[in-house]
Amino acid sequence: MKDTTVNLIANSWRIDHIGHVVSDLQPAVDFYLKKLGFRLECEEHLSEQKLDLVFLRSEQALIELLCPRPDNVILNKFLKNRGPGLHHIAYRVPDVNTELNRLKTAGLRLIDKSARAGSRGTEVAFIHPQSTYGVLIELVS
Amino acid sequence: MKDTTVNLIANSWRIDHIGHVVSDLQPAVDFYLKKLGFRLECEEHLSEQKLDLVFLRSEQALIELLCPRPDNVILNKFLKNRGPGLHHIAYRVPDVNTELNRLKTAGLRLIDKSARAGSRGTEVAFIHPQSTYGVLIELVS
Repeated sequence: MKDTTVNLIANSWRIDHIGHVVSDLQPAVDFYLKKLGFRLECEEHLSEQKLDLVFLRSEQALIELLCPRPDNVILNKFLKNRGPGLHHIAYRVPDVNTELNRLKTAGLRLIDKSARAGSRGTEVAFIHPQSTYGVLIELVS
Repeated sequence: MKDTTVNLIANSWRIDHIGHVVSDLQPAVDFYLKKLGFRLECEEHLSEQKLDLVFLRSEQALIELLCPRPDNVILNKFLKNRGPGLHHIAYRVPDVNTELNRLKTAGLRLIDKSARAGSRGTEVAFIHPQSTYGVLIELVS
């Protein structure tokens, strides 16, 4: 990572959601609904991304449960190595591409070079954990 | 975990902060301040807990950087096994002990049986990841 400090305006990132990866969706959904008291926000079934998602809300907290299909290599490798658990932080930003340019200038390694379609009609991009001290960061707008 | 459903009122949990464990504090603090644009909120140096903490804020997002001292067995084991990264979600709740009782009734495994003093003058308790699909949950009030 280059040691470049970008022109800093205090940023306006808010936490949009936290990604929680699980190997079996329904028991984890039941856990959030029945044990913790979250509400079901929405679900998406993404064949192309080999992934099923359920969003669960509690007041301002939003949890994204991610459950990989059998042929999803990356997330199944994550589950095999670490087991279920925290996967990423998604920050809500004013504009994903503007932030990507700023972070690229700051020397961060981007997974997505520009914003792409995400769940719930959003635009998203991911930052590589190698340049964020181990945290997979998603930008959402 | 017992399959007990507790009396559910939709809960009012908000995300208080996200715990991010690192092996070296200052470079990670610089990363949040200079690359991402977070602000320094506060820091705590906890000899008894063999731990140094720095809180970094951006709008409504609060990150707790945790850096274990050499004799902190649990967090150094985490770093050795997984490397730096996401460590826990802390939810702000109205009253920690009330939530602990509710979750114990729901069959969850508690790490702390009752609220104890946390950082920043808070009361806290942790829920075991074994009963939360792999996520270490902290309750804060």
